[in-house]
Amino acid sequence: MQALRPVTIQRHFTAHTPGSVLYRCGDTVVLCTASLENKVPDWMVGKGKGWITAEYNMLPGSTSPRKSRERSGKVDGRTTEIQRLIGRSFRAIADLKKLGERSLTIDCDVLQADGGTRTASITGGLIALVDAVNSVFKGAPASEYPLNGSLAAISVGIVDGQPSLDLDYIRDSQADVDMNVVMTGAGRFIELQGTGEEATFDDDQLAALIKLAKHGITELTQIQRSALGEDWPW
Amino acid sequence: MQALRPVTIQRHFTAHTPGSVLYRCGDTVVLCTASLENKVPDWMVGKGKGWITAEYNMLPGSTSPRKSRERSGKVDGRTTEIQRLIGRSFRAIADLKKLGERSLTIDCDVLQADGGTRTASITGGLIALVDAVNSVFKGAPASEYPLNGSLAAISVGIVDGQPSLDLDYIRDSQADVDMNVVMTGAGRFIELQGTGEEATFDDDQLAALIKLAKHGITELTQIQRSALGEDWPW
Amino acid sequence: MQALRPVTIQRHFTAHTPGSVLYRCGDTVVLCTASLENKVPDWMVGKGKGWITAEYNMLPGSTSPRKSRERSGKVDGRTTEIQRLIGRSFRAIADLKKLGERSLTIDCDVLQADGGTRTASITGGLIALVDAVNSVFKGAPASEYPLNGSLAAISVGIVDGQPSLDLDYIRDSQADVDMNVVMTGAGRFIELQGTGEEATFDDDQLAALIKLAKHGITELTQIQRSALGEDWPW
Amino acid sequence: MQALRPVTIQRHFTAHTPGSVLYRCGDTVVLCTASLENKVPDWMVGKGKGWITAEYNMLPGSTSPRKSRERSGKVDGRTTEIQRLIGRSFRAIADLKKLGERSLTIDCDVLQADGGTRTASITGGLIALVDAVNSVFKGAPASEYPLNGSLAAISVGIVDGQPSLDLDYIRDSQADVDMNVVMTGAGRFIELQGTGEEATFDDDQLAALIKLAKHGITELTQIQRSALGEDWPW
Amino acid sequence: MQALRPVTIQRHFTAHTPGSVLYRCGDTVVLCTASLENKVPDWMVGKGKGWITAEYNMLPGSTSPRKSRERSGKVDGRTTEIQRLIGRSFRAIADLKKLGERSLTIDCDVLQADGGTRTASITGGLIALVDAVNSVFKGAPASEYPLNGSLAAISVGIVDGQPSLDLDYIRDSQADVDMNVVMTGAGRFIELQGTGEEATFDDDQLAALIKLAKHGITELTQIQRSALGEDWPW
Amino acid sequence: MQALRPVTIQRHFTAHTPGSVLYRCGDTVVLCTASLENKVPDWMVGKGKGWITAEYNMLPGSTSPRKSRERSGKVDGRTTEIQRLIGRSFRAIADLKKLGERSLTIDCDVLQADGGTRTASITGGLIALVDAVNSVFKGAPASEYPLNGSLAAISVGIVDGQPSLDLDYIRDSQADVDMNVVMTGAGRFIELQGTGEEATFDDDQLAALIKLAKHGITELTQIQRSALGEDWPW
Repeated sequence: MQALRPVTIQRHFTAHTPGSVLYRCGDTVVLCTASLENKVPDWMVGKGKGWITAEYNMLPGSTSPRKSRERSGKVDGRTTEIQRLIGRSFRAIADLKKLGERSLTIDCDVLQADGGTRTASITGGLIALVDAVNSVFKGAPASEYPLNGSLAAISVGIVDGQPSLDLDYIRDSQADVDMNVVMTGAGRFIELQGTGEEATFDDDQLAALIKLAKHGITELTQIQRSALGEDWPW
Repeated sequence: MQALRPVTIQRHFTAHTPGSVLYRCGDTVVLCTASLENKVPDWMVGKGKGWITAEYNMLPGSTSPRKSRERSGKVDGRTTEIQRLIGRSFRAIADLKKLGERSLTIDCDVLQADGGTRTASITGGLIALVDAVNSVFKGAPASEYPLNGSLAAISVGIVDGQPSLDLDYIRDSQADVDMNVVMTGAGRFIELQGTGEEATFDDDQLAALIKLAKHGITELTQIQRSALGEDWPW
Repeated sequence: MQALRPVTIQRHFTAHTPGSVLYRCGDTVVLCTASLENKVPDWMVGKGKGWITAEYNMLPGSTSPRKSRERSGKVDGRTTEIQRLIGRSFRAIADLKKLGERSLTIDCDVLQADGGTRTASITGGLIALVDAVNSVFKGAPASEYPLNGSLAAISVGIVDGQPSLDLDYIRDSQADVDMNVVMTGAGRFIELQGTGEEATFDDDQLAALIKLAKHGITELTQIQRSALGEDWPW
Repeated sequence: MQALRPVTIQRHFTAHTPGSVLYRCGDTVVLCTASLENKVPDWMVGKGKGWITAEYNMLPGSTSPRKSRERSGKVDGRTTEIQRLIGRSFRAIADLKKLGERSLTIDCDVLQADGGTRTASITGGLIALVDAVNSVFKGAPASEYPLNGSLAAISVGIVDGQPSLDLDYIRDSQADVDMNVVMTGAGRFIELQGTGEEATFDDDQLAALIKLAKHGITELTQIQRSALGEDWPW
Repeated sequence: MQALRPVTIQRHFTAHTPGSVLYRCGDTVVLCTASLENKVPDWMVGKGKGWITAEYNMLPGSTSPRKSRERSGKVDGRTTEIQRLIGRSFRAIADLKKLGERSLTIDCDVLQADGGTRTASITGGLIALVDAVNSVFKGAPASEYPLNGSLAAISVGIVDGQPSLDLDYIRDSQADVDMNVVMTGAGRFIELQGTGEEATFDDDQLAALIKLAKHGITELTQIQRSALGEDWPW
Repeated sequence: MQALRPVTIQRHFTAHTPGSVLYRCGDTVVLCTASLENKVPDWMVGKGKGWITAEYNMLPGSTSPRKSRERSGKVDGRTTEIQRLIGRSFRAIADLKKLGERSLTIDCDVLQADGGTRTASITGGLIALVDAVNSVFKGAPASEYPLNGSLAAISVGIVDGQPSLDLDYIRDSQADVDMNVVMTGAGRFIELQGTGEEATFDDDQLAALIKLAKHGITELTQIQRSALGEDWPW
């Protein structure tokens, strides 16, 4: 499959955080909220810079069978990897100096999971992030606006020997190679994580996957731009 | 205030659990999902009975300032109290023998908090519970249906000396006495938890609060019945 | 049964805390110690107020079979509920401003359990609390004394269809409805927690239970007054 | 000081465990309960042997200032050391084969601490252990009785250059060398733990400490024998 | 820099595991041990397959200042990511069916850290893995040998605008883009993880990094082959 | 056996800590690193004194079968006992005032275990400690040097009825009595921990064990002195 699953974006889904987006991509549904605090973690105090971090979580009812809550004090390895990826990605487009001593936390809670939850969290999270940043910086000149540009993320993989875009759960389970790509709206790489699932891949396959991912990112960037409308900052 | 806040109920909000309800009550929004498993916890195996339990959680973006996730291995005391109350309430209307060796878990995730989240979890959770039970028992005769009747819950309190119904966050903070009442649709008590918040109350106040709560429960029962329509089992 | 179990109160049972009471009520035995510190928790510093909190614990040998210690980092839900109830009850009779920046911790360690351990903890804990408060405020005028009055607690329930007072373990297991009532010595409610144990109850039963509880509280207040003798502050 | 502090032993202090002893030694008070289960830990199943273990705990009110409960999931190192010592000591006098597939847990809860709590736990715990063993083996011939003999424990130390017996908290704090000795009633060593507290000691001091400890153990053994009276098994 | 740091491999460094390799790469030193058990984790029992997993750890003295041990129950996110990468990489070259119901654990303990510890763990761990596999499968025909071929890993990055191979700690800190590449000895990709460190990268840079990584992997494969000598299985 | 196992000491085994010793004693191999920080734990700040502590750990590959890492938040009792012993022993030869507000952490990581790992950690750790202290105090006059003298540790036991020196794993498993002795190079006791392993011992056996231990300590002190050569501080 070479097409994206249908995407819908519902901004201001909840009211207590400056950014709140219900992001649907096929049957994957993620609630991304962006909270803003006028302080930074202890280890950053006094550096004159801000901080952006992310947390990722799947609600128990997002999967069947039900997924246990991660309350035992051990956050599982997959969750840790994903939320580190999300936070790192957002920081890559940010100028933390311009943010000032503020913290942004992007919470990505998966309400319904059907593959691609981490990339949906990033793509949807951007809208929440922009809404939260705009709550302070709306109308600031580009030289002072703390985000350098947009980003989006997509998964690609090799399924039945064919490069495939935006894998749902079934196709993801069948994939021999799985790659998550995070890119800026301007087409530069932020993260590239390709994994052979008990398999390996060669240069040609890598090239095909990257080409497909770029195609998806371009389309997602358009969707984000429409969703933000005149609030698109760049 | 003597009136309920406006309630809206969106059934089948997500698709991976047999029950899934987005329950709004004023500015409080709770996602209640009911998951069903064909097994029971270890300590119940072989008793020929089922089990119903609940978990309660506030998403980080549900409040301002942001609420930290309970991932450290310590679920806080308030959360524990609430989810025990929810589970106990549902079990009070259930006939676990009729359920057979099945488990139902009602997950109540607060997306937006403005007071009354525990009572919203119970009132909305009932719809999710019925939908989940109906996925197995739809059309069963009353003698085999594992729920004996409906229930609903409401908070009441004494604010500025006046009995008050369905407290939002502001009024809840001002209340001298806070009472949560869970009742069956038929008007019998399941739980009654009245607490003086650094205050005490007398018999007359108790009587007024109970009267007000009954009024609210009656109205909520009507709303539940409409929402379930022909799926109302009794 | 409409009578309280026999109560004995042994003050100053241990010597390292200003309050220390061995409270026996039938076969339930609780050691209540009240510790005093001249500081408050971090979140209260600078408010010019004190704090009262409680911890509840069952010793391993208090039950048969032996109860495991809660050392794993997870305090169980029942323990959490009980110690929150105890602390809240004591704060309801306190004027934390008059206490000044001091903390009182009431530790309720159950040495032998036979039902009613939470109400014994409250009723016995009051004596320890008064002894600890008197270690600083003995002889203070009522306008400066930080406790507004006494309190006591009792359990009531419906067993075999009959309202029943001060349930021991056996009767508690048989009860359809279980209610814990905390009241001031002057007869006002502090907490009312009624629970249908896989059952429900109606207005008449509620009224009967409350009447019985008031009777018990009156008697317990007399017993507390005797035990404190001339140290009774009000 | 060359004399033991006064010892009092109250058997059957609580009723839910076959052994329950309130042991006072000077101002140190320990409640030792011995629980019996007709099973062994998983790793011992099928070996035809029993198991004896111990837990040690100081109640919050046992010291001033109040000692925090060990509920965070981290049992502190001192507690761990002490309870391992107690369990090992009891196993040294036991014939676990004769015990059969039973477990004995000796819980030592310090109600009031004034030095020597670990040795009080062992000396008092023996009485609880014997009472628990007798609940099954009373009157068994020596060849089948699972305890080979009694034991007792005492602390000795060098304070102000002088060997000193049964240190209370003040003297223990001043001691340069601190030694805990566990011996059988028949005068053989079970454990010998001597520690220079930022100090060292020589052969003569070691000899003097051991002599003093033996003296104390002999006396404690007599006290234990009196307390058990005709229940003394050997 | 376009050259690898000097590598030395000391097999059989310790004696209690079938594979044990002290791997030095510049000033990075990792002890890789491969343990073999004749059983699989519970969730794999009865599938007729084996399992390979890895753990990664930095000793406290491996860095300056000293690194705290991860004993608090929270393994940090970086550690989790790394050990998941290592385990996944080894499983990509394995045929778990041929391994039979056996588990291999590759423990990678960093004794001295100077950048590239995760890639050193993989490259050195291969030798330990082969030694452990050979302890059972030495001389097996290729059709039965459970490893399909070798693998090695290397880090590359863009430092001062230049693609750079095998980054030590200093250069890694300066890198704008950091990429870890795991490839088979035959030149196929297993993992590709490229990250802009608060930066982004384009196609040309990606191509240059991949080329450099391939060069490094080829060289490391030769070093591994020499180290294993006649024990090289392919 | 009355002879020590062969000892080899490799100083400066790793480079990031001022002390780093690979200590081999028979088939037991321990890496002891001593890290130095110019600060003290919070509870010691402002006392003008330093602190010395130790951590002990067995690597997973140090034993067969593999030993699980202690990452679950529970450090096992044996580990706790051992690291407390090691830290206490080093503090007994130190003058913490002379150390100033500095912390030394001696990390003892067992790479290969064959009995006597705690005593190897102490004896080898001394060399690492001296190297770390010398990194600041090399050449200081005795009146300012923060270590008063050397120490060493050895295990002795009664195996097959015979006193035996420096037990390896096999003999340790067979021992009826096990004693660890820590002494200064000048022949004074620091710690003496004798334990009957489900057995007891008498005065003559105690005397024989102590004599044998002194013999071993004398020899180990010579070996330490050679290893340090002109860096021996006393």
